[in-house]
Amino acid sequence: MKKTLLAALLLALPAFAQEPLAVREIGSLHVGGRIATLEGLPNQEIIFSAGAPPININPNGQFFVEQMYAQYVRLAAPRARYPLLLMHGGGLSGVTYETTPDGRPGWQMFFLRQGHDTYVSDAMERGRSGFARSPQILAGEPVFRPMGEGWFLFRVGPASGWNIDPAQRQAFSNTRFPIAAWNNFTRQGVPRWVTTDAQIQAAYNAYVQAVCPCVIITHSQGGNFAFNAALTAPDKVRAVIAIEPSGAPPATANVAALRGIPHLVVWGDNFAGNAFWEGVRRNITRYQDQLRTAGTVSDTLDLPAAGIPGNSHMLMMDTNSDEIATRIQAWIAAQGLMR
Amino acid sequence: MKKTLLAALLLALPAFAQEPLAVREIGSLHVGGRIATLEGLPNQEIIFSAGAPPININPNGQFFVEQMYAQYVRLAAPRARYPLLLMHGGGLSGVTYETTPDGRPGWQMFFLRQGHDTYVSDAMERGRSGFARSPQILAGEPVFRPMGEGWFLFRVGPASGWNIDPAQRQAFSNTRFPIAAWNNFTRQGVPRWVTTDAQIQAAYNAYVQAVCPCVIITHSQGGNFAFNAALTAPDKVRAVIAIEPSGAPPATANVAALRGIPHLVVWGDNFAGNAFWEGVRRNITRYQDQLRTAGTVSDTLDLPAAGIPGNSHMLMMDTNSDEIATRIQAWIAAQGLMR
Repeated sequence: MKKTLLAALLLALPAFAQEPLAVREIGSLHVGGRIATLEGLPNQEIIFSAGAPPININPNGQFFVEQMYAQYVRLAAPRARYPLLLMHGGGLSGVTYETTPDGRPGWQMFFLRQGHDTYVSDAMERGRSGFARSPQILAGEPVFRPMGEGWFLFRVGPASGWNIDPAQRQAFSNTRFPIAAWNNFTRQGVPRWVTTDAQIQAAYNAYVQAVCPCVIITHSQGGNFAFNAALTAPDKVRAVIAIEPSGAPPATANVAALRGIPHLVVWGDNFAGNAFWEGVRRNITRYQDQLRTAGTVSDTLDLPAAGIPGNSHMLMMDTNSDEIATRIQAWIAAQGLMR
Repeated sequence: MKKTLLAALLLALPAFAQEPLAVREIGSLHVGGRIATLEGLPNQEIIFSAGAPPININPNGQFFVEQMYAQYVRLAAPRARYPLLLMHGGGLSGVTYETTPDGRPGWQMFFLRQGHDTYVSDAMERGRSGFARSPQILAGEPVFRPMGEGWFLFRVGPASGWNIDPAQRQAFSNTRFPIAAWNNFTRQGVPRWVTTDAQIQAAYNAYVQAVCPCVIITHSQGGNFAFNAALTAPDKVRAVIAIEPSGAPPATANVAALRGIPHLVVWGDNFAGNAFWEGVRRNITRYQDQLRTAGTVSDTLDLPAAGIPGNSHMLMMDTNSDEIATRIQAWIAAQGLMR
């Protein structure tokens, strides 16, 4: 990362923050999915309004399923060469990149102010993508995240089980997560299925075909989907920035086509002693080595090693979220992806 | 409606459409809801990644439930006195007001260009609001809309049953719905429960407390929620524009507090012979009479009577959506709600 460029960007930030954003269009689209036919389900008695007689309905028929949603903000004069796609992690939606739980502008606004057209998506089955009948279309059943789960899974505090009682929640002493806003953050959660990776991936692949060439920022569960989207459409993806990715393509993946598509992986703090995250990280490091061996730029921004301790898994919401985004912006610029 | 004002607005539109929108901030918030405790559910075996061993999880614990989501776009120099809240109908989400299914800018963009800060929300349980475990928190089960239902329910074509086969779909000869985009429109659908009116209303009431004073545009199922939100917080709501509202408060509602809060109801075409919609409309007319008797302005924009035939229930997506929005904007201005 070029220090002069970073310094210039940091100096420029307050000026950007004061000026209105010149927006050409705000809009959205749904992409992907298919028409599925359900048959053989028994009729249902549905009461649509309190006090009204039940309506007998036939729940069979044709349904549009497995599509996904994205919202775009197109600038009047983008300074980035390509739109920036922001993909979220598991149990969440595109809201990840909007206002932080403690009320600060999120990364969507940050990267808009830096001159990127932004696309913020909801994965298949999440948020405004809608979900299809389960188990007929989405196998199994949805999983609901208790308010305590993320506290350790997102490394705000020490690991101590799936479902931490609020009274037992202790934060890492150096955490940057705005912990007073924890309950508000949990309002952003949406249910997930754990059987639907193939359908989610198919929708992401359709999304890339519809809106790219592009640069992708992805988070957590979205990491593996973005890595695979780049492998599937190397002609469409210009760079992948993976924020704490939780998975990666296998060692058998043919990454030769990714030459010329730089990758950046960003890690927060407090991995030590967390077997789950140490394992995740080893797997990602393995994939990065694979990329480098094939001649692809694969950089790592290890925040504690760069002198920035205390970041959680949700580092786009942490109190220093703008500082991290500034470093990512500098990396994007260093790849020649700004005009 | 003042004809000179309408003409001036129509003339001004092309100029607005050319200029970038000067935006102060794009962001979002979740409001309302409560912390619920689930107990007594059996443990689940969950496989989070293909090939990985199952994880035994305890699905009990604390969950944030019944919240709702809204996204705002705040202008650098709004010309409206109050933000404009855009509320959607049943089985849909805030996407209703974004890009139309045939790719034109939707009403969110229209009213932004007219100088309104906009808030586009997803009702409790829909879209980015997330949904809670069912039947423990949301009673009953979700209802999924077949692709054929809206064709008659939204009056694109004649009524012929719940679940029309595509081969049987016939459009009204004068329909303004962009029927070539019908399948794409059905991608916007999200499941709904039919047992959750009280929870949806509570979240809307919390939303109004959080972001108003405001003007509300609401659609279909959202009509009754917005009417009730105004009754609950008459100090916060400055006007209600109900697009084809499907319900209204009962005759026993005390509407005295709504004096000074003008209401406008907008209707499309092809009601004749549709018993469901004729019944809905009688009920809304009864509520409007009740408002007028109490001294509240309650106007009606009957589009066919105004010389505009063929509009469907989804008139914010119809090919003349901007023309209808222009008339609504003129009504808002005539109420003194622009600066």
